[in-house]
Amino acid sequence: MAPKTSLSGFPEWLPAERLVELHVLDTLRETFELHGFSSIETRAVETVDQLLRKGEIDKEVYGISRLAEDEEAAAVAKEGKLALHFDLTVPFARYVVDNAGHLNFPFRRYQIQKVWRGERPQDGRAREFTQADIDVVGDGTLPFRYDVELALVMIDALSKLPIPEFKLRVNNRKLAEGFYRGIGLTDAPAVLREIDKLEKFGADKVAANLQQNVGATAEQAHAALELASIRTEDGTFVEQVRALGVADELLEEGLSELAEVMAEGVRRAPGKMVADLSIARGLDYYTGTVYETVLVGHEKLGSICSGGRYESLATSGKRTFPGVGLSIGVTRLVSRILGQNLALASRAVPTAVLISLVDEDSWSDAQDVATQLRARGIACEVSASAAKFGKQIKYADKRGIPFVWFSSIEDDGVVTHEVKDIRSGEQVPADPSLWMPPAEDLSVSVSASQA
Amino acid sequence: MAPKTSLSGFPEWLPAERLVELHVLDTLRETFELHGFSSIETRAVETVDQLLRKGEIDKEVYGISRLAEDEEAAAVAKEGKLALHFDLTVPFARYVVDNAGHLNFPFRRYQIQKVWRGERPQDGRAREFTQADIDVVGDGTLPFRYDVELALVMIDALSKLPIPEFKLRVNNRKLAEGFYRGIGLTDAPAVLREIDKLEKFGADKVAANLQQNVGATAEQAHAALELASIRTEDGTFVEQVRALGVADELLEEGLSELAEVMAEGVRRAPGKMVADLSIARGLDYYTGTVYETVLVGHEKLGSICSGGRYESLATSGKRTFPGVGLSIGVTRLVSRILGQNLALASRAVPTAVLISLVDEDSWSDAQDVATQLRARGIACEVSASAAKFGKQIKYADKRGIPFVWFSSIEDDGVVTHEVKDIRSGEQVPADPSLWMPPAEDLSVSVSASQA
Repeated sequence: MAPKTSLSGFPEWLPAERLVELHVLDTLRETFELHGFSSIETRAVETVDQLLRKGEIDKEVYGISRLAEDEEAAAVAKEGKLALHFDLTVPFARYVVDNAGHLNFPFRRYQIQKVWRGERPQDGRAREFTQADIDVVGDGTLPFRYDVELALVMIDALSKLPIPEFKLRVNNRKLAEGFYRGIGLTDAPAVLREIDKLEKFGADKVAANLQQNVGATAEQAHAALELASIRTEDGTFVEQVRALGVADELLEEGLSELAEVMAEGVRRAPGKMVADLSIARGLDYYTGTVYETVLVGHEKLGSICSGGRYESLATSGKRTFPGVGLSIGVTRLVSRILGQNLALASRAVPTAVLISLVDEDSWSDAQDVATQLRARGIACEVSASAAKFGKQIKYADKRGIPFVWFSSIEDDGVVTHEVKDIRSGEQVPADPSLWMPPAEDLSVSVSASQA
Repeated sequence: MAPKTSLSGFPEWLPAERLVELHVLDTLRETFELHGFSSIETRAVETVDQLLRKGEIDKEVYGISRLAEDEEAAAVAKEGKLALHFDLTVPFARYVVDNAGHLNFPFRRYQIQKVWRGERPQDGRAREFTQADIDVVGDGTLPFRYDVELALVMIDALSKLPIPEFKLRVNNRKLAEGFYRGIGLTDAPAVLREIDKLEKFGADKVAANLQQNVGATAEQAHAALELASIRTEDGTFVEQVRALGVADELLEEGLSELAEVMAEGVRRAPGKMVADLSIARGLDYYTGTVYETVLVGHEKLGSICSGGRYESLATSGKRTFPGVGLSIGVTRLVSRILGQNLALASRAVPTAVLISLVDEDSWSDAQDVATQLRARGIACEVSASAAKFGKQIKYADKRGIPFVWFSSIEDDGVVTHEVKDIRSGEQVPADPSLWMPPAEDLSVSVSASQA
């Protein structure tokens, strides 16, 4: 476990823990690139106006301002107050509008960056954390097929991580909204807000709230909860919804879309995808498919990967940019992996070989050996002083460096090299221009632990 | 060139430009790891007290505060005012103290992160930029050898980047301070501050300032400028300094240290290292070796990689942690590479192959082909709709995707696959379980352009 951080809500990792995080980040990047997503980064700050456009989150936003007040006043007058981004969707939307003339639509991008939220320090939620987002954004239109594809890309990415079994839960806003309309409830966002609290409050409380806060009758509340109780790992949710006897055009559109997602889910990622008609997602801007992901056995951790379709990710004059995307909460995931020892790095440092020194004058020769090894991708470092060999070996042992290299000059001037595997104690002659460690020792690897 | 950013001082790259930046970051990371440096990241924020401990930079610091004022007041009362870090050295020093019980000393780490400085928007300097730092920090003592090694690691890293020839300029604070003392100037920091302006003001102006501001005689000013005029690519600077006839113990120590750095520089990186006795470095905390790096022909860009030795990087009670390190200004370097087209990505997107659709029902089969290719590390994407082949090829062409894959079902039910290199127009039969693109098309590569 990580030591207690000196500032709560701002997690920092020790070097061995960072290797686990790097493995997660590398795996995500590699997968996203294999699926043809381009990397972008946006600046950490946006104007406050831009950030608060979607409302409701202002309490969590960190404004930034120069400590030198006169400089700050001049800058604010010129460009507005600035603040740190709290997600990667709002900045991406702004980037798309800023650069629309330079991008090819549909534009596929991934973005892995830190975001900041001014959570209360005492409740232990992160105030700085890393998100990994993928989105596809179109110019004017965006084929529905991307709603299917993006879920599959995330399943591919998550499947390669050292994490427990997961379930990607999918729902559709049109389905829910059409159903509510079909039973006479027209304020769909208000109904969804109540349904969103199902896991927290339970069905009875939500039924009561639907009647009190949204003006539903007991029958309407009952029907809405019946819809939310449907959960299938295949397309059979369609019949279950139909059995509730509600007719609505938007409902049909939603059913058909969700059925298309599930059909490919069953075919391409069996057991990974669930049609879960209780999924509401808090944010108002989703307009169709919505996604959430839970780790089986870790449901209380909350969703580790969420997103959805937004018909209007961004607008610029008369242009509209629809999008669909998902976002992984990397820090939440890595904190859980580290906190429960779900994965381990094969060693704690990148170094595979310590080149020892036989005497103080041999440092430069040792660097020559190191250069030869590095040319073949073998990470190594050279001892800083010619301490006794036992001490140099201990240096390697303490750090988890598996090999120590010894060079010596014989009386006849010939240099001999040997390399010792300090785990087994085996020491063998080695040629600096040829020797390779076993493949599993070449680089640090991270794998799920057996715990 | 990048489009004008919407907020000056906060550069953002287009996807093709980002590939160049990623290449630089990947190359640095790979090199640092080959030399046995561990990755760490620190939080983006420190307390203002921590940041201002070294003084002088307060005008440039961005404080952060929640927009919700009541939340903010409570947090400041509890943990102090927070601000964004302006470099990676101050946070690293704090990290070392926080985690001293969990680290092995000497501790080698690299750290690649964004930093923020509240520069005036109008002078065009970046307010958000990426630094790549390496440091070695010891507990109590740190062998001088690391001063030699770290310069060589940075030379190795910079040599692998698509940048013009560079010179790493090295000097030594002890040498300068001892020399000044030897000629009767005791306020070394004040002398260094004047010498630091040599490139900007020229020798005459600096000589005058030394007399006016530091109280030097004309002879003392002359001697200080003679020292600063010494520049050699080998160890001959020692004789040139001795010829000035100044005797001082600290001067001898500095000469001996710098000679050791240069001896290995000549041996291991000929032509890359210069003993430049005018290098002063602004910051007060350096105590021995100091480094700066310029791109030949781009001297006005300023130093792209700087650092030095600090006998007291951090302290904790009675413990002192000496360190030596260098920091690359990645954004400055990448801006120059992009601005002058010094390097180019082999294509603008990660995708190597577009899998086309013969009809709307073939999407899932096309995904099967894509899955087979991705299993061999071939980045690909599937067309979102079965537009005419000409349109699908145009989609690939516009993005710089080199290959388009075609699958069709013959009358006898047999599926045939072909792949077209859209640059040459050559189209050949291909097996999705076996086909590989030429090695140079497998991944995006970035290389120095011929311009």
